[in-house]
Amino acid sequence: MTRVNRTEDRAVITVDAHARAWSPKTARARFRDGLAGPTAGVAAGHTQANLIAVPADWAYDMLLFCQRNPRPCPVLDVTDAGSAATVLAEGADLRTDLPRYRVWQDGELVDEPTDVRAYWRDDLVSFLLGCSFTFEWALARAGVPIRHVEQGRNVPMYVTGRECRPAGRLRGPMVVSMRPVPPEHLGTAIRESSLLPAVHGGPVHCGDPAGLGIGDLGRPDFGEPVTFADGDIPVFWACGVTPQAAVMASRPPFAITHAPGRMFLTDARDEQYRLAGID
Amino acid sequence: MTRVNRTEDRAVITVDAHARAWSPKTARARFRDGLAGPTAGVAAGHTQANLIAVPADWAYDMLLFCQRNPRPCPVLDVTDAGSAATVLAEGADLRTDLPRYRVWQDGELVDEPTDVRAYWRDDLVSFLLGCSFTFEWALARAGVPIRHVEQGRNVPMYVTGRECRPAGRLRGPMVVSMRPVPPEHLGTAIRESSLLPAVHGGPVHCGDPAGLGIGDLGRPDFGEPVTFADGDIPVFWACGVTPQAAVMASRPPFAITHAPGRMFLTDARDEQYRLAGID
Repeated sequence: MTRVNRTEDRAVITVDAHARAWSPKTARARFRDGLAGPTAGVAAGHTQANLIAVPADWAYDMLLFCQRNPRPCPVLDVTDAGSAATVLAEGADLRTDLPRYRVWQDGELVDEPTDVRAYWRDDLVSFLLGCSFTFEWALARAGVPIRHVEQGRNVPMYVTGRECRPAGRLRGPMVVSMRPVPPEHLGTAIRESSLLPAVHGGPVHCGDPAGLGIGDLGRPDFGEPVTFADGDIPVFWACGVTPQAAVMASRPPFAITHAPGRMFLTDARDEQYRLAGID
Repeated sequence: MTRVNRTEDRAVITVDAHARAWSPKTARARFRDGLAGPTAGVAAGHTQANLIAVPADWAYDMLLFCQRNPRPCPVLDVTDAGSAATVLAEGADLRTDLPRYRVWQDGELVDEPTDVRAYWRDDLVSFLLGCSFTFEWALARAGVPIRHVEQGRNVPMYVTGRECRPAGRLRGPMVVSMRPVPPEHLGTAIRESSLLPAVHGGPVHCGDPAGLGIGDLGRPDFGEPVTFADGDIPVFWACGVTPQAAVMASRPPFAITHAPGRMFLTDARDEQYRLAGID
């Protein structure tokens, strides 16, 4: 499996107060104008989304893969073929409004541009998937310490030994993110994330990483290692990088995704995804 | 729009204690052997599902329609083309194990057999969708009176003036079920159903039916009228009949669905759909 570039993968967690207060529309305009930085903390309170665009010929397999693996692949919107518009963000252009993209051919990363108009095809169907930034907001609001944020690091992510349920030509391992949680906050962390089933929901595993086939928490496959405080329990959530792992494993002829940490800013508010999703 | 046969639509709510205690496997065997009655209350505590099978050529439109309208169309499983098996029920055969089916050609109801082996096609993709029986169980357990059950009637369902978000060639109105709820139970009813986002979730509307474009609660489009107790508030939930309404409106060349009130018995337990769905 292709390993992503560690340097590029690093998302600086803190943004200046200015970017935190941006509207999603302002944030998209800045990214469209060329700003290429990470989006963690930008337009705080608004929902960020993973992007994966595949040719229409692969769209049914991708949608079915997401339906069969809703924890790692919670679908927030699917565009019509060729359209760069989404109901989740008025006036947005998915080809230009993300800070940085990844372009994949036959499962290999071939480019990381800040604009994909030159790569766009009329048969591309874009999937916007929920992102853990939404449940981190809920955890933080409930007083759960978020260690990787405290430490200014990108969340560590691991390829597990657990295979997703395949769909057509798409298969691949589940990828998880891991957060150390103090035992006294474990109940709150599980409850608050479970109340957000549209954005990964509750954890898929707690405790011994061997239960997911993960060898060494100090060597994540994506992101950065995080330091545990005494007594912290490792808690694992299904991760939106999973469809990228499926692209690497299944090698569709073409795909475009966001670059790690460079998400799509929607107009939706995180709060709208509590329990029900947006009507 | 085709109106379904009122007599056939009537589901007797009470089943004998024997059928209530059946395992899902026993229930499926009885239906396979020709028992054609309604399934309300059968194998209590186990999840029942709406069935809609369409040709593979229409499967992407149907899956996208469900993704775009998750309240009325909560997908529990999608089969591979031609397969009559589902991960939700070991050893089940979707062609024989429901009590009664409806066969549709060009959006018109053409047959209501108890077995669809003669109609089966190798390109059929089956969708199993969540059913309100699951959240009724949760409401009843929390002490909310279920008026139509008390009155031994099928739940009243209404075609609303609210259009679903279309997907490809599929479009149609949202269909809702309505339950009168005493005001002192309204909070519980909303909370308990909201905790089941995988099976319709919380209500889409409360109070004046005109808000949904419904004229007369005494004249439901499917099911039977229910009597209100003094002070009861009408509460409306998105309904799994919606995809049948989409079939009637969009006229795919062929489709098979369950007959109203004659659902598919899965091995899953209702409790497993609280918040997270089945992993």
